[in-house]
Amino acid sequence: MVQYVYDFSQGDMDMKDLLGGKGANLAEMTRLGLPVPPGFTITTEACREYLSLGTEPGELRVQVTMALRHLEDAVGRQLGDRHDPLLVSVRSGAKFSMPGMMETVLNVGLNDASVKGLAEESGDERFAWDSYRRLIQMFGATVLDVPAAEFATALDDAKKAARRATDVDLTTDDLRTLVATYKSIVLERTGAEFPQHPREQLDLAIRAVFDSWNTDRARLYRRRERIPQDLGTAVNVVTMVFGNLGDTSGTGVAFTRDPATGKPGAYGDYLPNAQGEDVVSGIRNTLSLDDLKHLDPLSHKQLMKAMRRLETHYRDLCDIEFTVERGHLWMLQTRVGKRTAGAAFRIASHLVDERLITEDEALERVTGAQLAHLMFPQLDRSSERTLLTRAMAASPGAAVGTVAFDSAEAQAAAARGEDVVLVRRETNPDDLGGMIAAVGVLTARGGKTSHAAVVARGMGKTCVVGAEALEVDPVARTITCGDVVVHEGDSLSIDGTTGEVFLGRVPVVPSAAQRYIEEGLDAALGGDDGRAEEQSGEQGVDDDTADLLRAVDRLLRHADARRRLRVEANADTPDDAARARSLGAEGIGLCRTEHMFLGERRALIERVILADGPDERSASMDELVPLQREDFRGLLDVMDGLPVTIRLLDPPLHEFLPDLTELSVKVALADVGDDEPDPADLKRLAAVERLHETNPMLGLRGVRLGLLVPGLFALQVRAATEAAIAQLQDGKDPHLEIMVPLVGSVQELHLVRDEAERIVADLTAAAGVTLDVPIGTMIELPRAALTAHRIAEAADFFSFGTNDLTQTTWGFSRDDVERSLFIKYLENGVFTISPFETIDADGVGRLVRIGAEEGRRTKPSLGLGVCGEHGGDPESIHFFHEVGLDYVSCSPFRVPIARLEAGRAAVSSDGASATA
Amino acid sequence: MVQYVYDFSQGDMDMKDLLGGKGANLAEMTRLGLPVPPGFTITTEACREYLSLGTEPGELRVQVTMALRHLEDAVGRQLGDRHDPLLVSVRSGAKFSMPGMMETVLNVGLNDASVKGLAEESGDERFAWDSYRRLIQMFGATVLDVPAAEFATALDDAKKAARRATDVDLTTDDLRTLVATYKSIVLERTGAEFPQHPREQLDLAIRAVFDSWNTDRARLYRRRERIPQDLGTAVNVVTMVFGNLGDTSGTGVAFTRDPATGKPGAYGDYLPNAQGEDVVSGIRNTLSLDDLKHLDPLSHKQLMKAMRRLETHYRDLCDIEFTVERGHLWMLQTRVGKRTAGAAFRIASHLVDERLITEDEALERVTGAQLAHLMFPQLDRSSERTLLTRAMAASPGAAVGTVAFDSAEAQAAAARGEDVVLVRRETNPDDLGGMIAAVGVLTARGGKTSHAAVVARGMGKTCVVGAEALEVDPVARTITCGDVVVHEGDSLSIDGTTGEVFLGRVPVVPSAAQRYIEEGLDAALGGDDGRAEEQSGEQGVDDDTADLLRAVDRLLRHADARRRLRVEANADTPDDAARARSLGAEGIGLCRTEHMFLGERRALIERVILADGPDERSASMDELVPLQREDFRGLLDVMDGLPVTIRLLDPPLHEFLPDLTELSVKVALADVGDDEPDPADLKRLAAVERLHETNPMLGLRGVRLGLLVPGLFALQVRAATEAAIAQLQDGKDPHLEIMVPLVGSVQELHLVRDEAERIVADLTAAAGVTLDVPIGTMIELPRAALTAHRIAEAADFFSFGTNDLTQTTWGFSRDDVERSLFIKYLENGVFTISPFETIDADGVGRLVRIGAEEGRRTKPSLGLGVCGEHGGDPESIHFFHEVGLDYVSCSPFRVPIARLEAGRAAVSSDGASATA
Repeated sequence: MVQYVYDFSQGDMDMKDLLGGKGANLAEMTRLGLPVPPGFTITTEACREYLSLGTEPGELRVQVTMALRHLEDAVGRQLGDRHDPLLVSVRSGAKFSMPGMMETVLNVGLNDASVKGLAEESGDERFAWDSYRRLIQMFGATVLDVPAAEFATALDDAKKAARRATDVDLTTDDLRTLVATYKSIVLERTGAEFPQHPREQLDLAIRAVFDSWNTDRARLYRRRERIPQDLGTAVNVVTMVFGNLGDTSGTGVAFTRDPATGKPGAYGDYLPNAQGEDVVSGIRNTLSLDDLKHLDPLSHKQLMKAMRRLETHYRDLCDIEFTVERGHLWMLQTRVGKRTAGAAFRIASHLVDERLITEDEALERVTGAQLAHLMFPQLDRSSERTLLTRAMAASPGAAVGTVAFDSAEAQAAAARGEDVVLVRRETNPDDLGGMIAAVGVLTARGGKTSHAAVVARGMGKTCVVGAEALEVDPVARTITCGDVVVHEGDSLSIDGTTGEVFLGRVPVVPSAAQRYIEEGLDAALGGDDGRAEEQSGEQGVDDDTADLLRAVDRLLRHADARRRLRVEANADTPDDAARARSLGAEGIGLCRTEHMFLGERRALIERVILADGPDERSASMDELVPLQREDFRGLLDVMDGLPVTIRLLDPPLHEFLPDLTELSVKVALADVGDDEPDPADLKRLAAVERLHETNPMLGLRGVRLGLLVPGLFALQVRAATEAAIAQLQDGKDPHLEIMVPLVGSVQELHLVRDEAERIVADLTAAAGVTLDVPIGTMIELPRAALTAHRIAEAADFFSFGTNDLTQTTWGFSRDDVERSLFIKYLENGVFTISPFETIDADGVGRLVRIGAEEGRRTKPSLGLGVCGEHGGDPESIHFFHEVGLDYVSCSPFRVPIARLEAGRAAVSSDGASATA
Repeated sequence: MVQYVYDFSQGDMDMKDLLGGKGANLAEMTRLGLPVPPGFTITTEACREYLSLGTEPGELRVQVTMALRHLEDAVGRQLGDRHDPLLVSVRSGAKFSMPGMMETVLNVGLNDASVKGLAEESGDERFAWDSYRRLIQMFGATVLDVPAAEFATALDDAKKAARRATDVDLTTDDLRTLVATYKSIVLERTGAEFPQHPREQLDLAIRAVFDSWNTDRARLYRRRERIPQDLGTAVNVVTMVFGNLGDTSGTGVAFTRDPATGKPGAYGDYLPNAQGEDVVSGIRNTLSLDDLKHLDPLSHKQLMKAMRRLETHYRDLCDIEFTVERGHLWMLQTRVGKRTAGAAFRIASHLVDERLITEDEALERVTGAQLAHLMFPQLDRSSERTLLTRAMAASPGAAVGTVAFDSAEAQAAAARGEDVVLVRRETNPDDLGGMIAAVGVLTARGGKTSHAAVVARGMGKTCVVGAEALEVDPVARTITCGDVVVHEGDSLSIDGTTGEVFLGRVPVVPSAAQRYIEEGLDAALGGDDGRAEEQSGEQGVDDDTADLLRAVDRLLRHADARRRLRVEANADTPDDAARARSLGAEGIGLCRTEHMFLGERRALIERVILADGPDERSASMDELVPLQREDFRGLLDVMDGLPVTIRLLDPPLHEFLPDLTELSVKVALADVGDDEPDPADLKRLAAVERLHETNPMLGLRGVRLGLLVPGLFALQVRAATEAAIAQLQDGKDPHLEIMVPLVGSVQELHLVRDEAERIVADLTAAAGVTLDVPIGTMIELPRAALTAHRIAEAADFFSFGTNDLTQTTWGFSRDDVERSLFIKYLENGVFTISPFETIDADGVGRLVRIGAEEGRRTKPSLGLGVCGEHGGDPESIHFFHEVGLDYVSCSPFRVPIARLEAGRAAVSSDGASATA
């Protein structure tokens, strides 16, 4: 017999797959002897069975009956008993947290009879009727699908009729009338009476939680968070405890450390005389834990003790939901808490100091995405700024964009290419699409644990919440703040670190972490060299920032010590190269020489390509050799002692030719005007028409152009070799490597390699020096990966060009589909993430694996790297580590991220192999 | 010890890898007791060793010495002996025939002393000096790299000085002087005397043959013919026999059957008093074998007997080189002979009749390429034509094009997109590039066994040779024929079946084989139904044609009986479908519905795509449904009882939108003119700019457009299902299948499939009928193949779209690179053949294999086919058979070719597995 139901005393924290996160943690807290209200968990397996059968598995009902009896025995009350009713909450609890995505029903067990028992037992008739009102409202909306707005309207009407300002002002009679109204709404909407039988309520609520797994918004959330769609949710049935039994009761959310900054010490929100949903929804503003200490020192002390216990036990920041019922503390939930990027680094480092975790574990607690986040630029403090208001900093970073008032507009504006700040009174799960599309989120209501704050932190979006000075009118589509009115389409700048909101577009400057990364710890701390002072006029950084920078430094160093992947950078200029080297790059993995032919030099390349014959061509080439030689010397000099990989020219042909449409219009206009068309234009037009490509991405690029235009690659090889020889003769240590782009067949590489080897041999012989110049190739076409065993015969190294490999493997032109199609594909679940952002392991990744394995089989010494944008993407870096590459090469800014993730990949694969 | 040298008595015909074709066949003839001059063969292994070491392997010299001693003993003469010299020829002989590509040196062993011995022994002083003269000329050019023209000029000068009309008129004294001149040319050019030592001559000649393996022209030939570059050549050292010892001597080339028509009976060319090179080079015009019968009945009888023996032994057409030396017949070479397409079919069928081979073997003797060749259209006999001359038909077909006089011009004109007829006095291996580029070849000199004829037949190019009425002047770039002068760039039409050459461009009509294929044997023979008579007014076909058609019919029927692959057709109209069915297609494997939206209907699709909203869109769609329904009914009706695979719309977006450049020019011109630009044009321009794609090949196509434009695919599924229901209600047997294009991820297919299944279910339920509509997908992106195990979950069948799969796997836009790049790539050996013509087995083919195997692993019942152009390509069909596909779908014209090759593939894989 399958066990579908577990009492809290039966499970533990390792059973998340089966009991969900909440259930497993409730069981663990029970095991630890913390005050958890008795209850039981229905497994995710039961949910999966339900979803696949379309009905509850037969055994489930029996097991729920038995668990309920056990619960009733434990608390000494009967569910919905007319005299002293046991009430329960029915809460979803999936393996992965999906805040606000799924259903919860409180107060199950109340009906027309038990409400009176509750009134008697609690001695608070108003509380009993308020609880019943809440049950019908929640049950009606989530179980019976009655539109929530109908209850809200009825509540507003009741307040108006009775002239009450707030919910709390409603009297027992008001509430009794409201219950009657709610029940008639249910009858009208569903054609049936509100179910009075307690067990029927329980069964329907369980089923509603199961069903909530598959709502559209839950599916969208999982896609966004890359949570598998087939896990199912567990259901927790928990004895109700009440935070709304007067002033000695209350409910709260707490963190064992500050999730925003990582500062040690408990932190939380508390609402007296309230139920849990009131805190999370952000509808009322909250008190702090210090306030609780004054109100109820005993409960506060118990809470602090429980939190210390949890943190020592979980060895990490925990967040907690708790309720105080008439001075008695109940722990309703705990989990390892979400945190900002900065907090993640500081907490990990502190936990090492506190000897709770090792440095390896600390590395697993932070991510490259978090580091990237820390390096996000900030709003420039020194620029002219018009402060609109100051509110709560919920998720750090700087966001500057045009205002949108709902998801639809935010998505539309983003699709037009605009940066958008989504502004809402408060957010709910329906706003998810808009939050994804926006660069930042601003709400007028709610605290740091409100929906907007939690979700935005999870996404790494800049977010400011609780800006109560702002009157947000989503119908008029305006924000009013005193005299100022902001309209949709106007610009705002928000600072997720300070909570400030500015009118208009504030310039953006580097963050302290960025400064640390670029200039080192001392400089960033405003220390030794005093450079910071001179430049900014400020006296170092504050203590929190200093602590953060030290934590980042510690973990980056540890990552460097652990990682197996080398990290190189993509750089085309000495400046980029110098920046990359200061960021820790161990060489240039990709120098895109076509970037050296922008501006004035473009004309030279155009002349080479359009040349009428060899004489015209070689004249242009002769001009190019010395220019290129100096380009390459600059790079070799900055990267002295480290590899510099020169990729031979890979222009999309059209980028080096005049635009066909523009030129056609120009010639046509000249034709009808008074002047004759310029003969040079006519000649160019003819050439451009001849060379015009329908699909330049798949045209005469890379090695193809190199083989078609005689001497083109030779001039670059010559210039690079001469540069290396000159460096050598200057006593330097140049490590030149030549890379051939867009190879699809080993023959192409042989042809280029033969020529290049001859040139290198001739030049070194003439100079009387010895120079080893490895010659390798990009693997950026499916065929290159599929025939890697052949291509390796002619290559010293492979560099996987996963940008182009993604384009060809999927048949996607990034320019054409990323904006138009990908939004649709993310929406309908074809993608969980753009394959240009994180490597598509099943398709593109399989080719990388084939290429790496089969290339190495031919040539065990083959160097293997990657130089697409994926080289700087955290998840992709783990993939490349696992596939066995030697290095990743990414943009200079992402070098630290790649270093960190490479270290994490090493730790995690060591862990995996140690476990295996 | 490795055996590098084999006496002719040691080898046999199965040793071609080691002894080359010529050596193995000489050994075989020796074994059969035919009169082969004694000699020995140096192995291909020796050549490979030589080429890799850069010098002869040590053992080789010793083994040659021993073989030479054995030879001298056998013939009782010493190499280069001053009294009675043994002379030898040194001939290349690779595994695969490479006519004219490699070196031969005759008369090795002659020097200043032995020439006198030869004169005495032969009693013909002039012959001896002429032989010596030939040795120096051949040896000088091929071994010593003296430009051949210098000897030719010296010969011409000698004739002029002595006032002799031809070579034959030169006297002994003339020749003695000429030898002196030749020797001084050698001295001047090489700085050394012509080598007098016989063994030195032999060793140098062997080395020259080895070296000739790697000349550029040999490498190019092998690439063109797909002969591996690393085989090496064998070298045959053969006792010289002389066809130039007066009128009782001669030399010839013969075939056991007519290689041009396949007619039974020996056939050949004979030149009295000549050496072998004179026949092959086509310099002198030849006699027939009948002439030989009159001249030398005994030798003729021996030759006939030898040829019968060979044909019975080889069970195939053999070609032979022979020499008669003073009435004694010597067999110098034999091999299975090349033949025209028509001859291949007739010979294979005759050999079955003669019980020499089985029908399976007969199938292996013909190819789809040959069948295609037979189906080539011919010049229209009924049109106005101006006959320029009539010459020898060397390779059949009709070629119409502009005249080019050399390879450079032929290649340049072909690159411009012109059809070219290459016109030469005679061709030599340097003309190979031009022959590849041309559609037809015409020479003024040479016979059916000349270089031009042999090579053109091998390539399947139309060729006419020996047009002696034409005076070809490659310097003036004119052909003069009486009063008529044809210039480069003028057009000619040549008929390779009749040998006729016409001025200008003659219209082209179907061949008899084509007529047979389309209308059946009786109709093509002009028989029973009399339709041929009515239409053409002719009384059937001639006997040769009738015999050919019967042979084709027999082998096609046998192929149908043997093949495992079904053959379907790509067809978009009922006419195409009907044609395909008459050609034997067993269904429509691909209906490209985008082809149904050309002309007037294009506007409808443009409106659907550019629609401002759902209303505008659905109005256009409502117009489309009935049109599409009738389209599909037409196809289902013609293909009643057979599958009709409807591929949902796969337009490159730009093909259905106005051209951006044209529209921009139009609007710009209207702007500067008196009129305002048309507002409709402005609106369209805005839309086209918005939807303009940089790489339409990789843009919003296929399933992507289907998922982006709501209702687009639904309308097609609806129309197709309604069509099938209507057919069903008419008592027909429709087999509708729906195919989704450009799928890269199983999710895309799920989305389309879910919608399509709903539509089919709704429509069939409403109509009260049962209809099974398999839904499959194209596999035309690398990712689709790589994730086939997932995609198979949602597919009933896969159809590999190898055109697009080739484009994406190689990253080639066919439009852009096929003309510009591929000529270069074929030239420099990156390709042996365009991957769009024959499937690239290593790259694209590997994806097909992965897709097929892994798709079937998920779903064993998965249907597998191919619908790219490769579906009609002979070599590719063998690959698809081997990979285990169920069907190929190709253009209607190629259906018979595919049937034949599918049969051949089955025979050959049965043979392979029987052997294995």
